[in-house]
Amino acid sequence: MKVNAKRIEKDIEEINKFNSTPGQGISRATFTQEYMGAIGYIFKELEKIGAEIKIMRGGNIRARLEGTVKDAPSVMIGSHIDSVFQGGKFDGVVGTVTSLEVIRTISENKVFHKNPIDFVIFVEEDGSRFSSVLLGSRIWTGKVKEEEISKIIDKEGISYREAMTESGLIPEDNSILEGRKIKAMIEPHIEQSLVLESQGLSIGIVETIAGIKQLEVTIEGVSNHAGATPMNLRNDALCGVAEIILNAEMIASQNRTSVATVGLVEVTPGKTNIIPGKVRFTLDIRDKDDVTLNEISDKILKSIEVSCKNRGLSDTIKLASYTKPVLLSKKIVEIIENSAKNQGIDTLRMISGAVHDSSVIAELTDVGMIFVPSRGGRSHCPEEYTPLKDIEIAANILLESVIELSK
Amino acid sequence: MKVNAKRIEKDIEEINKFNSTPGQGISRATFTQEYMGAIGYIFKELEKIGAEIKIMRGGNIRARLEGTVKDAPSVMIGSHIDSVFQGGKFDGVVGTVTSLEVIRTISENKVFHKNPIDFVIFVEEDGSRFSSVLLGSRIWTGKVKEEEISKIIDKEGISYREAMTESGLIPEDNSILEGRKIKAMIEPHIEQSLVLESQGLSIGIVETIAGIKQLEVTIEGVSNHAGATPMNLRNDALCGVAEIILNAEMIASQNRTSVATVGLVEVTPGKTNIIPGKVRFTLDIRDKDDVTLNEISDKILKSIEVSCKNRGLSDTIKLASYTKPVLLSKKIVEIIENSAKNQGIDTLRMISGAVHDSSVIAELTDVGMIFVPSRGGRSHCPEEYTPLKDIEIAANILLESVIELSK
Repeated sequence: MKVNAKRIEKDIEEINKFNSTPGQGISRATFTQEYMGAIGYIFKELEKIGAEIKIMRGGNIRARLEGTVKDAPSVMIGSHIDSVFQGGKFDGVVGTVTSLEVIRTISENKVFHKNPIDFVIFVEEDGSRFSSVLLGSRIWTGKVKEEEISKIIDKEGISYREAMTESGLIPEDNSILEGRKIKAMIEPHIEQSLVLESQGLSIGIVETIAGIKQLEVTIEGVSNHAGATPMNLRNDALCGVAEIILNAEMIASQNRTSVATVGLVEVTPGKTNIIPGKVRFTLDIRDKDDVTLNEISDKILKSIEVSCKNRGLSDTIKLASYTKPVLLSKKIVEIIENSAKNQGIDTLRMISGAVHDSSVIAELTDVGMIFVPSRGGRSHCPEEYTPLKDIEIAANILLESVIELSK
Repeated sequence: MKVNAKRIEKDIEEINKFNSTPGQGISRATFTQEYMGAIGYIFKELEKIGAEIKIMRGGNIRARLEGTVKDAPSVMIGSHIDSVFQGGKFDGVVGTVTSLEVIRTISENKVFHKNPIDFVIFVEEDGSRFSSVLLGSRIWTGKVKEEEISKIIDKEGISYREAMTESGLIPEDNSILEGRKIKAMIEPHIEQSLVLESQGLSIGIVETIAGIKQLEVTIEGVSNHAGATPMNLRNDALCGVAEIILNAEMIASQNRTSVATVGLVEVTPGKTNIIPGKVRFTLDIRDKDDVTLNEISDKILKSIEVSCKNRGLSDTIKLASYTKPVLLSKKIVEIIENSAKNQGIDTLRMISGAVHDSSVIAELTDVGMIFVPSRGGRSHCPEEYTPLKDIEIAANILLESVIELSK
């Protein structure tokens, strides 16, 4: 028994017809017309197999294939269909269409399963409408409290609740998702990096979702005339930051699993002929291990201090966010690995540098993730691409893993 | 015979009452109400001594004390009174008030002079309204052509001519300023740097106005997920630029007279969790010697090439401006030096890293500049400050030099 790749290909095509920026990548913001168009297509597919569709807390969607043991905890599969603005066709969609194809295949082949199998679509994973990532899974699991939900608004001042109600995704079951109700969850996803492609592999199995420390740093020096101030009398904030950027790169590079990125730099006054007096920048540091994450972060902080001291600059450092690494289930990793082996597929155990709804669900139950390659490592952009062949392999591995978990 | 420091102090105070941003530095844009307020105050002072005020080409102002030889070329002194937005009280003003005080002193003391003495106020030196520095002197000397003047507009779409006419500064003499009509010019100015202060000196004498090469550089790498992309698989445009900034700093520092500044950096996409795919920045390179300027510039360009090659980045480099160094008059340097010596004042021969109207006039005749210290090297900001004592010394040296030149 195998999945039907043609059907997956059609699903990807159909879902991506719902796009508010045709010709400029895919934009499918949560609860918009485009979002509901894609949901409508998926609902039709689910209705064909008679899955029981339910709108859950926060507008998340669950489609259930009941198992033979009625109240058994479910085996959950799925992902998200919201996208970043002008993103690609595969982020979220790959997990959605492979999961959809798996429950279609299980239903059509009348595969025996004790546990219910839940196909889920999480709301607002990418945070492009309400500026908060993993929002759907965090609302569903109660991590975002009732009173906080009321405060969530988009850039136009429309509230989450208002947008949800207007979309028609009105919760039929408003209960908080509990761990005891889920036996396991598996989320297929694009890798969003170059590792699989560079090793010529089709499948990665995530062991850990990296922890993240995000810092906001402001370096102050002395703004002066670019022509009149000799090099040895300068306190150039930008030269200090250049040193810090290269040190952060070097420190993170010393450790195979660490990454450090300066993604945003704002120079004040930002004039061609004035020595920068102030530079604000962000630092995003990640590692799979919390101790290493803090070591790397401490080394970078130390290097900031040294650069500032040597150059007569001052620093202000704010911890903007800190998320500890999430260890996924060893049991699920092995189940996925075995399924792959049975199908003659080589896999690589890896770290997810990006967060996913799986990070949230992993606090409740056993969770695993299946990665497929991203061409050129590109994601969140129109160039995002994963070969259909790899998506098909992931779906077949997911199928076997779900059967194994629910039998 | 000495200048009157109390009067200079009052001039500075009165001129700076005309300011569109009280409490937030000095803003006196060309041809505005504030500009004309300051002009009005100066005109009253000039009328007291019976100087012949004339509005010249482009709205530049000339107030003449006739000499005994009627058609002799004039000795010109002066500076500008327009300021950058939220600048300081001294840039331009120091040259204006010392020159004003010198012609008052000469007139009141009925000092004999063969040559006419011209007190001048150049329009739009700092380029804060019409985005083009030295505009007044370039229009007056015909470097900006008639048809180009017609195209000059400010940020609100008001044309230079319109603004000039509305201010009331309608040229009575629209002829192009020619070298044969000026025997010499001296412009006192704040140093805008730390050199004089760091050496405990009151007076600098400019030998050369540095040449400037301004480059606009765009570095392109690959924008990727900050979490998912290992350090060794990145083509981070910002890390490349950090390396280029430090190399430019190092290359310029190897030469005592060179400076190199990256003043503006724009990072794309500029998100905390995305590796920068594109960075645009400006490079401002200066030296007193044209050969050295080009050597330094070439070395920096070479380092950009090397960094890009090593990091898999590409570069696009545009020459935004190139002004050759301007050699000021040796004769005038010596006259200023002698005047200072006569008054027991130590001086330092130096380079002006900034450009001035003197750069333009130096193409026509013998030009000299007298620098006074800027506290902390600060300029173009509310913190700009020069002690009155130093301004007084500069005025006395200017007085003696003008008498020497016009006798």
